[in-house]
Amino acid sequence: MDGSIRPAAQKDRAAIKGILIRTRAFRPAEIKCALEVFDAGTLDRDSGYNVFVFIGDNAPLGYVCYGPTPLTEGTFDIYWIAVDPRFQHQGIGWRLLMWAEEAIAAAGGRLIILQTSSQSAYEAPRRLYRRSGYILEGTIANYYSPGDDMLIYTKSLQP
Amino acid sequence: MDGSIRPAAQKDRAAIKGILIRTRAFRPAEIKCALEVFDAGTLDRDSGYNVFVFIGDNAPLGYVCYGPTPLTEGTFDIYWIAVDPRFQHQGIGWRLLMWAEEAIAAAGGRLIILQTSSQSAYEAPRRLYRRSGYILEGTIANYYSPGDDMLIYTKSLQP
Repeated sequence: MDGSIRPAAQKDRAAIKGILIRTRAFRPAEIKCALEVFDAGTLDRDSGYNVFVFIGDNAPLGYVCYGPTPLTEGTFDIYWIAVDPRFQHQGIGWRLLMWAEEAIAAAGGRLIILQTSSQSAYEAPRRLYRRSGYILEGTIANYYSPGDDMLIYTKSLQP
Repeated sequence: MDGSIRPAAQKDRAAIKGILIRTRAFRPAEIKCALEVFDAGTLDRDSGYNVFVFIGDNAPLGYVCYGPTPLTEGTFDIYWIAVDPRFQHQGIGWRLLMWAEEAIAAAGGRLIILQTSSQSAYEAPRRLYRRSGYILEGTIANYYSPGDDMLIYTKSLQP
């Protein structure tokens, strides 16, 4: 999929909300939280949230949000990655992930944390993380709800 | 140590700040974050932060802060426990932990998460958690800084 990545803006909000809904991977409370973070990242440059969108076909087709992990030195969280299900399996998630990694490295990051769910709806992003060198470093059983574990992936960046 | 536990209030703020400083376990950014959470919990009842202080000798000697983990069903975080170093090893931390566990159970919680550091300054709380039935479920190497790991303790509450 041809396209480019640029900083997200409020004008992208409706498109991002549509993507989050169409993935069917997020519950309403998660979508609300994702949009609050999107708003913080696009309206308040001191929020610590950095949001970038992938533009293809003249529309946002996916986005990534990352930022420094509070109370750590050089650790960053990638909080959200989502790609429009109509455009998945075309490398957009991979390009967003690479973009975030390069930006984190440029900002002096040394460790990236990705938290995700064990549910089957998240198998595609889990595969992307594994292929991109992320290690499953911890599992918290029944974290999100009974039977839904939290998986913690990490990747150390080379200095 | 004789004493009682009650909801924290703004009048306790200076005492809590003094305790956080005297423990020598927290960096300035951590103390600032702890006090922001203390303020949220004592000023905004919808913050999701519940803060309780242990009162002995007519003064706060320790405190605990817990709350429901966002985007989970029935999982709670115990965010902070701190005891004045002049009154440690007298069961105050244990009483605060038991208090939080009972309150979490009463609120329908089924899983408690405690995140702490691998540094030696945190050995006393780690021992308390282990003795209280917490399991070390995950370790994220170099999370806080190079050489300073994050330990994730969990405890399942019986329904």
